[in-house]
Amino acid sequence: AVKLNGFACKNPAWVQANDFSFSGLHNPGNTGNPFGSAITPVTVAQIPALNTLGISLVRIDYAPWGVVVPHYHPRATEIITVIEGSLEVGFVTSNPDNRLISKTLQKGDVFVFPVGLVHFQRNVGHMNAVTISGLNSQNPGVITIGNAVFGSKPDISTDILAKAFQVDKNIVQQIQGKF
Amino acid sequence: AVKLNGFACKNPAWVQANDFSFSGLHNPGNTGNPFGSAITPVTVAQIPALNTLGISLVRIDYAPWGVVVPHYHPRATEIITVIEGSLEVGFVTSNPDNRLISKTLQKGDVFVFPVGLVHFQRNVGHMNAVTISGLNSQNPGVITIGNAVFGSKPDISTDILAKAFQVDKNIVQQIQGKF
Amino acid sequence: AVKLNGFACKNPAWVQANDFSFSGLHNPGNTGNPFGSAITPVTVAQIPALNTLGISLVRIDYAPWGVVVPHYHPRATEIITVIEGSLEVGFVTSNPDNRLISKTLQKGDVFVFPVGLVHFQRNVGHMNAVTISGLNSQNPGVITIGNAVFGSKPDISTDILAKAFQVDKNIVQQIQGKF
Amino acid sequence: AVKLNGFACKNPAWVQANDFSFSGLHNPGNTGNPFGSAITPVTVAQIPALNTLGISLVRIDYAPWGVVVPHYHPRATEIITVIEGSLEVGFVTSNPDNRLISKTLQKGDVFVFPVGLVHFQRNVGHMNAVTISGLNSQNPGVITIGNAVFGSKPDISTDILAKAFQVDKNIVQQIQGKF
Amino acid sequence: AVKLNGFACKNPAWVQANDFSFSGLHNPGNTGNPFGSAITPVTVAQIPALNTLGISLVRIDYAPWGVVVPHYHPRATEIITVIEGSLEVGFVTSNPDNRLISKTLQKGDVFVFPVGLVHFQRNVGHMNAVTISGLNSQNPGVITIGNAVFGSKPDISTDILAKAFQVDKNIVQQIQGKF
Amino acid sequence: AVKLNGFACKNPAWVQANDFSFSGLHNPGNTGNPFGSAITPVTVAQIPALNTLGISLVRIDYAPWGVVVPHYHPRATEIITVIEGSLEVGFVTSNPDNRLISKTLQKGDVFVFPVGLVHFQRNVGHMNAVTISGLNSQNPGVITIGNAVFGSKPDISTDILAKAFQVDKNIVQQIQGKF
Repeated sequence: AVKLNGFACKNPAWVQANDFSFSGLHNPGNTGNPFGSAITPVTVAQIPALNTLGISLVRIDYAPWGVVVPHYHPRATEIITVIEGSLEVGFVTSNPDNRLISKTLQKGDVFVFPVGLVHFQRNVGHMNAVTISGLNSQNPGVITIGNAVFGSKPDISTDILAKAFQVDKNIVQQIQGKF
Repeated sequence: AVKLNGFACKNPAWVQANDFSFSGLHNPGNTGNPFGSAITPVTVAQIPALNTLGISLVRIDYAPWGVVVPHYHPRATEIITVIEGSLEVGFVTSNPDNRLISKTLQKGDVFVFPVGLVHFQRNVGHMNAVTISGLNSQNPGVITIGNAVFGSKPDISTDILAKAFQVDKNIVQQIQGKF
Repeated sequence: AVKLNGFACKNPAWVQANDFSFSGLHNPGNTGNPFGSAITPVTVAQIPALNTLGISLVRIDYAPWGVVVPHYHPRATEIITVIEGSLEVGFVTSNPDNRLISKTLQKGDVFVFPVGLVHFQRNVGHMNAVTISGLNSQNPGVITIGNAVFGSKPDISTDILAKAFQVDKNIVQQIQGKF
Repeated sequence: AVKLNGFACKNPAWVQANDFSFSGLHNPGNTGNPFGSAITPVTVAQIPALNTLGISLVRIDYAPWGVVVPHYHPRATEIITVIEGSLEVGFVTSNPDNRLISKTLQKGDVFVFPVGLVHFQRNVGHMNAVTISGLNSQNPGVITIGNAVFGSKPDISTDILAKAFQVDKNIVQQIQGKF
Repeated sequence: AVKLNGFACKNPAWVQANDFSFSGLHNPGNTGNPFGSAITPVTVAQIPALNTLGISLVRIDYAPWGVVVPHYHPRATEIITVIEGSLEVGFVTSNPDNRLISKTLQKGDVFVFPVGLVHFQRNVGHMNAVTISGLNSQNPGVITIGNAVFGSKPDISTDILAKAFQVDKNIVQQIQGKF
Repeated sequence: AVKLNGFACKNPAWVQANDFSFSGLHNPGNTGNPFGSAITPVTVAQIPALNTLGISLVRIDYAPWGVVVPHYHPRATEIITVIEGSLEVGFVTSNPDNRLISKTLQKGDVFVFPVGLVHFQRNVGHMNAVTISGLNSQNPGVITIGNAVFGSKPDISTDILAKAFQVDKNIVQQIQGKF
C-alpha cells in the first residue's frame, strides 16, 4: 500500500463520515499502572482522514496522585484543559536557562506545552482527574524521557548515562533495570 | 508596539506561567440568542503565548436544538469531541461535488472538519450539549456564511446575491435586513 | 497509480515541453448560463507538471452584467487583472468586522483576493469583459457559497439554514430547489 | 519603520481597497532598449497588501525579436500566457542533465518555468508580443545571469570567470565591459 | 530593537561580508570539564546574517572517552562527520519502540540524527576527537536531558521524577544535587 | 517503486544504522580537471534516510588556484568552513544591485551563501585547500551557470545568448563549444 506520512490516502470519492470520526472519548482509561495515568489518543492512527490535516486530540485520565511522567512531542504543541480535578503541570525551557514554567490547574483551566519541550502533569487531588488536549499534528509522536534514555533497546552504554547524570554506574543500571 | 502575526512578542526572560494559561473553560456560555449556541474561544487573543505555536481550543455550548450555523475557518482544521449531549454535524466538500459528509454524534464521539470547508453543528437532543474542539492555528479565523454574504458592511449588491442564490431581490433584501 | 497531492508524478527523465504547457487561453468561454460568466482554469488538472509547483492561472469571461458569484479558494490568494471591460469586485473580511472591500476596476487594473476570503466579480459594463488571474496553488479549490450551502448533496437540514439566514423554511426550500 | 519580509504591515482597521489594487497593466512597456523587452511587475512593491500573500503578476512587452535574457526567480515558479504574438520560451534543468525544455508559444498558450531554473523568452514574430505571468511569491526576486556573473559590483575576478566559461580573460573582460 | 525570530534584521543595503562570516572554527574547544567535550556553535548568535536562512554549523571536541550526553534539538536534524578520532554515536526512536540506532564512526564517516530525537556521542579512542555538524536551523536549540529533567530551575517535584524513573526519591535528590 | 521527493521510503521497522551513515568524507577528491576542484556530496543520494530530513554535507577539495565556478543551489543555503588552506569566496545579490559580497577565508573561517544566489570559491594559496559545507536540503540541487547557459542540451539559441551577454555570436559559439 502506498503511504503518505506513513498512512495510506483513500480515494476522495470513497470517503464516508466514518472516516472522519471516532467513538469512546468519554470512557475513562485504565489508570491501574505504576504511573496512575492512562492516555487515549485520537490521532491519524484512530481517524485515517486526519492524514495531512495536522491536528489530534488526547484524553488523559489520572488516578489520585497519578502522573504523566516527563516527555515531549517532537512534532506538536499541546493545549490542555482540565475537565475534572486539579493538576500540577509544567514544562522546562531549553539550554542554558532550563526554567521550569509550572502551575496548578483547576477544572476549566487551560495550559500550553510548546512544541519540543519536556513537560509533565500530576494529579494533586484526592479525586480522579481528566484532561483533554489538542495537538497540532495528526501524528505528534511521544518521547518519554525514561523510555528513551533508560529503556532503549538495546541500552545506551551505562558509562554514557553515568556521565550524563553524574551518578555511579550501578544507579544507572538500577534505573535501566526498571525499564 | 511591534507585532508578529498581529500579536506582540514578549521578551522570553519575562514570560511566566500565566502567559501560558487561561481559566474558565468549564463555565457554560450564554446560549440565550437566536442561534441557541455560545462559543468560548481560547486562542492567541486569550493566551498571548500561543503566538506562533499554531494551536487553539474552543468550547461550545448548545441549548436544545441550538445551532452553530454554517461557517469555516480559513486557517485551521477542527477536531471536535462531544462532552455532553448529542449533535448533528457536517461539512460540505468543494466544487464540483459539494458532498455533505454528516453524522449524528453522541457523547465521547470525535469528528473532523477539514480546513477551509463549510461546516455546522446542531444539538439534536432535548438537553444542553457541550463540545470541545482543537484547531491547528493560534488564530483560526471564523467566516460565518450569513455574516459574510448577507451581513457585510457595506452590503454586497442585491443584484449579485440575487444571481448567486437565484432568487428575487426582495428575498435577498429580506435576508440582508436580518444581519 | 501512485499519487502526490492527488496527481501522479512522472519520471523526470521522461518530461517534455508539452508536460509544461496548455493551449487555448485566448478563447472566450461560453457565458450562456444563468450567471453570465465562464471560467477557464489552468491548474494541475490541465498542466500535470504544475504538481508541487504552487501556481495556476484562470481566465474568466463575463457577459454584460455577468457575475462570478460569491465564492472562495481554500488554498490560494488570487491576483486578478482586467484584460477587457470594467468590473465591480470585492471581498469580505472575517468575523467580527465583515468589511466589504470593493472597487470598480477598469482595463489594466489589478486587484487581490486574500486566501480564504469570500469574493465576487461583476461586469458593470455593456460589453463583454475578460480577466486573467494568478493563484498561488496548483490546485486552489473553489467553494461557491450557493453550491456549498444550498446545493450540497444531500441537503443541509432546512431547519439549520433557516436559523443561519433567519428566514422561513419555505424560503430556504425555494433556494435549495434552484441548486 | 518595522518590517516583515522587508515591508511594513498596516493596521488591518485602516486598509482600503486601494491597498489591494494597482492600475496600468494594460499599458505597453517601453521596449526601446538593447534587449527589446520591457517588464512591468505587480509585486509587493506595487501593492503593499500582497505582503505575506505569496503571489504577484508581471506583464512583459516584446518588440519584434525582443528577448528576455536568461534569468531565474529564486523564490517563485512562473506561469506565463501569451496575450499577443508568438514566443520561443525555454528553461534548463539542473546538473547533471542540463536539459533545455523549450517550446514556441502562440497566443493563448500557457507555459511553466519551475522555481529556481534558468529560463528565457524571445519574440519570434514580426509583431509586438505581450505576456502576462503569475508568480507564487509577493517578492519573487530576479537574478539575470549576465548581471550577476559579468555585471556584479565589484566584478568577479576575471580569472574565475575565464575558468568558468573556459575562455580567454580578454573575452571575459570584453563581456564585463558591457555591463 | 525589533526582532524577527529573536534577532534583529539589518538593512540589506548595509550588509557586508563580515555579516556572513565567523572565524576560529579550527580552534579546539576546552574539554577540561566533567563531560570531556566542548561545543563551538556557529548559529545566528554568531553570524547574524543566518537569520531566516535555516542552517548552522557546530564543531565539537572530545577528550579521550569524552561524551556529549543525551540531548536533542527541537528544531533541527543534525548531520555529523568525524574529522579526527573515532566515536560511538546513537539516537533513540520514539514510543513505543525506543530503538537505539547506533554505530561506531571512524574518521570520514557521516551520520544523521533526525530532528527531535535523543542522541549522544562518545569518543571511544585514546586520542582527541573532532566532529563538524550541519544543522538545518539557524537556531536549532539544545535540550540536554539531564539539565531539563534534573537541573531545571526550580526543580521538578522529586515525587514526579521518582515515578518517572521508578527509583527512590533520595536517588532523585542525589542526581538533582549534581545539577 | 513508490517515491517521495524522488526517493523511496523504507519501512521504519527495517531501518538500520547503515541507512543513516556514509563513509569516506576524509578522502580527498580528484582535482585533476580543468577547474582544479572536486566535490564529494553527502545528500539523500548517498544516505537514503536523509529523505524528508532537510540537510546534507559536502566536502570540496581545491588544487592550488582551483575554482568552484559560479553556481547556485535552488533549494538550499550553504554554510561553508575551511578545513585547510585559504580561499576567496563570494556571492552576488539579485537585481537591481548585483552586489558582490566576497571575502578571503582562512582555515577555521565560516561563510554563508544564501539560498538561490550565485556564488563561487577559489583557492588563493599554493597548497591544496579543503572545505566542508552544510546545506539545508537533502537534495539541494546544483545549477552551474556555464552548464545551464552555454552547455544545455540542446543549446539555447546563439542569438538569445548574444543579446544576453552583448557579444558577437561567434564568441557565444566559441563558449558553447567548450561545454
